[in-house]
Amino acid sequence: MKEQCMLDIAKSRFTTKHYTGEKIPREDLDAILEILRLSPSSVNSQPWHFFVASSDAARAKIAPAFADFNQARVTLASDVIVFAVKTGLDETHLRRVHEKELADGRFAGIENQPNLDAGRRHFVGLHSDTLEHAIAWETQQTYIALGFAMYAAAGMGIHSTCLEGADFEKLDEILGLHEKGLKSVVALSLGRGKPDDSNAARPKSRLTPEEVTSVID
Amino acid sequence: MKEQCMLDIAKSRFTTKHYTGEKIPREDLDAILEILRLSPSSVNSQPWHFFVASSDAARAKIAPAFADFNQARVTLASDVIVFAVKTGLDETHLRRVHEKELADGRFAGIENQPNLDAGRRHFVGLHSDTLEHAIAWETQQTYIALGFAMYAAAGMGIHSTCLEGADFEKLDEILGLHEKGLKSVVALSLGRGKPDDSNAARPKSRLTPEEVTSVID
Repeated sequence: MKEQCMLDIAKSRFTTKHYTGEKIPREDLDAILEILRLSPSSVNSQPWHFFVASSDAARAKIAPAFADFNQARVTLASDVIVFAVKTGLDETHLRRVHEKELADGRFAGIENQPNLDAGRRHFVGLHSDTLEHAIAWETQQTYIALGFAMYAAAGMGIHSTCLEGADFEKLDEILGLHEKGLKSVVALSLGRGKPDDSNAARPKSRLTPEEVTSVID
Repeated sequence: MKEQCMLDIAKSRFTTKHYTGEKIPREDLDAILEILRLSPSSVNSQPWHFFVASSDAARAKIAPAFADFNQARVTLASDVIVFAVKTGLDETHLRRVHEKELADGRFAGIENQPNLDAGRRHFVGLHSDTLEHAIAWETQQTYIALGFAMYAAAGMGIHSTCLEGADFEKLDEILGLHEKGLKSVVALSLGRGKPDDSNAARPKSRLTPEEVTSVID
């Protein structure tokens, strides 16, 4: 029953190509933003920031950063979420995550022990030898959140399009992300797809189970 | 209703720290593997392969590649899925994905037009300037699938643990991935967590909505 429901979501979702311009309910957008906030990340690093373009003006403002074929997927979407990562996880961020965990009672009963966040610092350090490596690792974590949002949107009957086709440096400029210690890495359109969306009727195509799955002996 | 259901899944899931050794139903595992296969990836590149360790022998075989603190999360899980990416998306792979799309009827009515996969080749090319870049991009796509599997598992009432704490080169050796043109990047344990799992009762901690979300004006 439950496995069928979760599988049906994966079977029915598809990448929307053409939006109607209709808005999705604000409570649905809020739920997706909350799901993003709750997404898991390695050592609870939460290396992300989510920028939401909901107004026509906001979507028009970011649209020029997207590839030609993606522009209408920004302007005619209900909302576009820009996923950004921090340009390195600095001491301020690591301290803040730890303080929040203490405040939330993650360490109730043991909060007086030293180095409660030693594990996080160790793992973040493993991926911080270069800024490029740090950003790649943070981006991986952010793609977990992206997967959560895409899956949840499908489960809520909301159409979505993952947008990698963009000039993210231009998007960073538009949003002033450099000054904020952030870097955009991907975006997600949410909205209502046209009933005759070219991709809605096409069969999903994936490699066969034999080609992508192996059992370890 | 639907948004509440999808949000509840995100609220209730947590990273399991201690497993019981109990098996999850095979139909649940099969559903998760099918959800992985159906996961979206940029330009439908499907740059992945999923290796499943279900038997005690298989989990014992891969366990030495994992960090000490993760070993029991392999040996006492019901199943461990190892996520691998291709060491570059070669001509054979690109042709096969395109052939499968043709066979599945993605281009019904226009299959005689040339260069139907030009877009995919262009985008794969953009991320193939170095093998390191290609693997980073493929890994991002694979983390979407990871997000799908984690979300779906939670929705099905199955406990899971994302395992980045491993020696993936050692895991590649154990599974002979180098010869297969593959590279392991992350793993996911699935199973039943102990009722007194130390992380089950702890409150989830995340930065505040104000800290991770901004509205674009």
